[in-house]
Amino acid sequence: MDTPDPQASRLTAQFAFLTEADRLKSVLRASPLADASRRENSAEHSWHLALYAMALADQAGPEVDINRVLRMLILHDLVEIDVGDVPLHSQDGQAHGSAEIQEAEAKAAARIFGLLPPDIGAPFLALWQEFEAAETPDAVFAKSLDRTQPVLQNLASGGGSWTEYGVTLPQIETRVGVKIARGAPAIWTHLHARLRQVFARG
Amino acid sequence: MDTPDPQASRLTAQFAFLTEADRLKSVLRASPLADASRRENSAEHSWHLALYAMALADQAGPEVDINRVLRMLILHDLVEIDVGDVPLHSQDGQAHGSAEIQEAEAKAAARIFGLLPPDIGAPFLALWQEFEAAETPDAVFAKSLDRTQPVLQNLASGGGSWTEYGVTLPQIETRVGVKIARGAPAIWTHLHARLRQVFARG
Repeated sequence: MDTPDPQASRLTAQFAFLTEADRLKSVLRASPLADASRRENSAEHSWHLALYAMALADQAGPEVDINRVLRMLILHDLVEIDVGDVPLHSQDGQAHGSAEIQEAEAKAAARIFGLLPPDIGAPFLALWQEFEAAETPDAVFAKSLDRTQPVLQNLASGGGSWTEYGVTLPQIETRVGVKIARGAPAIWTHLHARLRQVFARG
Repeated sequence: MDTPDPQASRLTAQFAFLTEADRLKSVLRASPLADASRRENSAEHSWHLALYAMALADQAGPEVDINRVLRMLILHDLVEIDVGDVPLHSQDGQAHGSAEIQEAEAKAAARIFGLLPPDIGAPFLALWQEFEAAETPDAVFAKSLDRTQPVLQNLASGGGSWTEYGVTLPQIETRVGVKIARGAPAIWTHLHARLRQVFARG
């Protein structure tokens, strides 16, 4: 093609973003697969969370728009392509949510969503920022699911990142339970009962 | 808890489904990661497709509901937990879409979605059936994306499953191009131009 074609260069940008996003499949998380065969990556984790939103939609308050939650969860970890995953329970746990990490993630979001035509990239960036701020009902529910899924992975695999980092029940209550309960109180009640049984046996 | 609690047993079913779904992370596909480091699995592929739907929504016709497309794509491969992935270009390519495979997939869908409370599982099953039938505008667009993503993965990785199975450009046009063009004609025009360049260099 000899003349620039706006449609073609738009698709070129969209495909460049989608190919860059592929790198999320190589970012490993602390939590394992349910069968404990390996650690999960952030791309398959994001798919799993989207499925959580669909299967647990009845746990969302009436003000929550599940379609927006789905989109948030699909986008929420893309910044890890540049920044990596900061495990909640690691010795670096302090780093989780630190100003330094937040700044690096904001820079990553600008770069990655900036690969897209602005009319697509700008709403994606806004949705990611809303998730990070965790203030709107949609973001609060999305965050609850993001904290619920690793608990289920650890329960299914027989310990997972709790065993690796020597995590106690009170630590789970503080670091995880509070955030699950904020957006999905019945889920936390249910998980808490299971956790008390497991840690009592431990 | 001594008395049965309907809310608790509902959540138990929802979590059983979500933990079973985790097995999709262990189903390998023919197509590679963009950096060619390994083959991708069906869970991370499903995430990638959901992102395709979000980033390429402007390629959908006005009758397409992207929120339904997103849900279809998140669910579309779950049957592979029981049936596995049947690669389009393999020597078994004939098997793809055969009555035998279709029957096995229908059985898998009934089992897997049957783990959920019926008010959640029945609409999931219906959405999967709609995707498989590929007749509604939402399903046709979803199928176009499902055929587009492996083309991008093969292009990015320098051959991928085309090299492995000795696939020719006319075979891609027949097996893949027709389905992409049906739901997203401009995407196929764009990809076809790139494919002609790559296969001419061959």
